[in-house]
Amino acid sequence: MNKSYAWWEGLSASSSVLRFVDRLLRGVGQVMFQDNPLSGLLFFIAIAWGSWAGGMPQVAIGGLVALLAGTLTAQWLRVDEAGLNAGLYGFNAYLVGLALPTFMEPSLLLWFYVVFGGAVSVVVMLALVNMFKTWNVSVLTAPFVLITWLLLLGTNAFSGLQGSALPAAGIIVPIDPAAANPLHLGEFLKGLLTSISQVFLKGHGPAALLLLAGLAVSSLPAAVFALVGAVVGLITAHALGAESQLITAGLLGFNPVLTAIALGAVFYRPGVRVVIYSLLATVLSVIVQGAMIAAMTPFGIPTLTAAFVLVTWLFLLPALKFE
Amino acid sequence: MNKSYAWWEGLSASSSVLRFVDRLLRGVGQVMFQDNPLSGLLFFIAIAWGSWAGGMPQVAIGGLVALLAGTLTAQWLRVDEAGLNAGLYGFNAYLVGLALPTFMEPSLLLWFYVVFGGAVSVVVMLALVNMFKTWNVSVLTAPFVLITWLLLLGTNAFSGLQGSALPAAGIIVPIDPAAANPLHLGEFLKGLLTSISQVFLKGHGPAALLLLAGLAVSSLPAAVFALVGAVVGLITAHALGAESQLITAGLLGFNPVLTAIALGAVFYRPGVRVVIYSLLATVLSVIVQGAMIAAMTPFGIPTLTAAFVLVTWLFLLPALKFE
Amino acid sequence: MNKSYAWWEGLSASSSVLRFVDRLLRGVGQVMFQDNPLSGLLFFIAIAWGSWAGGMPQVAIGGLVALLAGTLTAQWLRVDEAGLNAGLYGFNAYLVGLALPTFMEPSLLLWFYVVFGGAVSVVVMLALVNMFKTWNVSVLTAPFVLITWLLLLGTNAFSGLQGSALPAAGIIVPIDPAAANPLHLGEFLKGLLTSISQVFLKGHGPAALLLLAGLAVSSLPAAVFALVGAVVGLITAHALGAESQLITAGLLGFNPVLTAIALGAVFYRPGVRVVIYSLLATVLSVIVQGAMIAAMTPFGIPTLTAAFVLVTWLFLLPALKFE
Repeated sequence: MNKSYAWWEGLSASSSVLRFVDRLLRGVGQVMFQDNPLSGLLFFIAIAWGSWAGGMPQVAIGGLVALLAGTLTAQWLRVDEAGLNAGLYGFNAYLVGLALPTFMEPSLLLWFYVVFGGAVSVVVMLALVNMFKTWNVSVLTAPFVLITWLLLLGTNAFSGLQGSALPAAGIIVPIDPAAANPLHLGEFLKGLLTSISQVFLKGHGPAALLLLAGLAVSSLPAAVFALVGAVVGLITAHALGAESQLITAGLLGFNPVLTAIALGAVFYRPGVRVVIYSLLATVLSVIVQGAMIAAMTPFGIPTLTAAFVLVTWLFLLPALKFE
Repeated sequence: MNKSYAWWEGLSASSSVLRFVDRLLRGVGQVMFQDNPLSGLLFFIAIAWGSWAGGMPQVAIGGLVALLAGTLTAQWLRVDEAGLNAGLYGFNAYLVGLALPTFMEPSLLLWFYVVFGGAVSVVVMLALVNMFKTWNVSVLTAPFVLITWLLLLGTNAFSGLQGSALPAAGIIVPIDPAAANPLHLGEFLKGLLTSISQVFLKGHGPAALLLLAGLAVSSLPAAVFALVGAVVGLITAHALGAESQLITAGLLGFNPVLTAIALGAVFYRPGVRVVIYSLLATVLSVIVQGAMIAAMTPFGIPTLTAAFVLVTWLFLLPALKFE
Repeated sequence: MNKSYAWWEGLSASSSVLRFVDRLLRGVGQVMFQDNPLSGLLFFIAIAWGSWAGGMPQVAIGGLVALLAGTLTAQWLRVDEAGLNAGLYGFNAYLVGLALPTFMEPSLLLWFYVVFGGAVSVVVMLALVNMFKTWNVSVLTAPFVLITWLLLLGTNAFSGLQGSALPAAGIIVPIDPAAANPLHLGEFLKGLLTSISQVFLKGHGPAALLLLAGLAVSSLPAAVFALVGAVVGLITAHALGAESQLITAGLLGFNPVLTAIALGAVFYRPGVRVVIYSLLATVLSVIVQGAMIAAMTPFGIPTLTAAFVLVTWLFLLPALKFE
């Protein structure tokens, strides 16, 4: 962390309220691996803006409420102080809180769901962290994916919970070849930005720029790999013949973005071989995202970041030394 | 174990036949975590009664046959004596033997399936125990769920095996809001009892009372948490708007019952924080059971105790110390 | 390994080109667990013959291309020399390369898929090997199954990739009892051979004889257990009432063949108890293959060797000592 944050660190240490705010902000920052309150703040503003602009303020509020629920639950469970201070018990809760109002109709029970989902995401985080430390591999956003899938699937059984924005469950139908069409520069640029903002479930260009800024203030390589992931994701998806509407909406790009940041700028030390290895994973993320869209069709739930989690696990588990 | 069982312990130790009977009874008792032959006997009588009353004697017989097959297989495989004596190689086999005749048409091949399923459930138990000791977590009824799912799914490919009572595979359809209706006291009480008896795949009130008695003779906290799990399960399901027919049949309640016993009375030492933690898991079990019902729809198989296994794993894996 | 291979060993050690050819051949041999270049050569010829005879030369070529891609990727990743020399980084890639052209329409992008699939199969191999060494269990063909499933599922999202020979995704429908009909001797023998050749995704009798020869030159027990697995698989499938067309095509037999070789002749030392244990697993493989056919129906993808992998894992994980 940069020295210029020293004054904020001093402030946080001096006040339990500010320490708590710091934990919340870092929780948001960890969605893209940044243990940095300023990144978290910029990400938070970006998502609030995107939610508001999209006429869905409940999404940004849901994120905040679940983040609070998760962080408080983690404190109640007396988890390790270091992880708590680094925001490690916040990012999955925050994502759960963004996802539930995105796919469900507003209701009182939705807010129960948001609080409850944020709280249990911490238990799942602790469970998976304990499991994956066997292989010294990060759990990434797996707790978010698992809990959100279960909560969204559960809406089918309860009339008080309406998953009105969920894709309808159905039979997998291969893409119609006519669906792939030329991708013009404007669409390419739009897809580039939405690929980054969809990491937070938002298709909003200006928010993506703020997210990039949030990455850059903490880690320039992370910002670069986010862009590289988006570009490689777009080109791969288009070259393989994906539906252009999916591409411009960023729905085939957010997983490659996360994979590229994780492998290129977080878990391995950059170098030529790491870059090639990360690109291989980034391309695979696009294909696996296509596979996940098909695999989730019978269940009528969104893929979330499952492709990123699966591919990044597969590329971290070998524990390769790139020297 | 209570001192009053000393005479039975002495008897069992003196005769290999009685030791074997003791193993069988404890195997039944372990379905609800009780290493206690009297609990096992009461559970066994309860299920025999429920099967007979429901016009399905083959269910009780299937349980016994699979229990025998499983216990003999475990002995042939020379598993650890302590686990064998505690009935740890019996409970999954017993459940497999109850489930197969519940969902399949009687035939000679059904009985091959029951014997075979009981036998291989022991191999699966050994496999998962070896895997999960990495994290010091119990495998619960996962072997039962896995083997029963595979055997029931397999009926689709073989005309000699008719899964006539299986749900038809189909497209997931969200619950119709009209399906949730008021839950009267009588229905509530019925749902309370069937939630307990459905642990053994039976919707039978009197059997549930015997099951509670079987729990109480071995562990009063276990009986209390079974009731708490049932009540919390019912209230949660109804509050979220579940179909009342599912609630009164106990089909949303047996997973919360098992989760509440496991976390509240078996794997953690009771205390205020453990009670809150267990309640969180109990509520989650209801939602996950709703999710499992949806998730199994494309496959046309019952959810069994998968929701209990998944949620309890997630709440055991953190290995929290509640002091 | 037999002493008569000493001259080849000497040659391989003396030339990096021959060492590379040796790695490729052993990679093919490892599909049926044989660390033997002659087995690999015979297997390779068998599959080339079967592909050619079936009018699908691209399948044999695909296998070779992916094998090259996988072995080169392994070398680039600087994996352990011993595993590389034993062909452990080749067999999954080879199978991926056979499977993709079997289920997809020829196109330029298919060949990208073949090269890419071969390369990433090595990463998945390294990932799973690292994971499963926790329990000292082999990963078998799991990398092949996982990567091929993902790549085939992904074809649904990309118009440049046509999975034209894939089963259409649909609703699971239990077998019509009329589908099972008498199995005559000729059909039985045909099923016996195709059960062996389907290990390499080919229904070709003469190829099966070459495969058996390839097994026998390396390990007579492996050849015997392959035959036993095929016979037990056929009898079990027929006795349970499987569709005869599936049986004669070998589609219910290749998993039992692999399970029987793995448990009977590779991972446990042969003996009476091991034989019984292996037979139990072989029978289970047939049922699980039936289950996998049903389970994959909603996804519209082939089962590949998933039944073998799952059952063999379950029978290896107990780490039993059969003395």
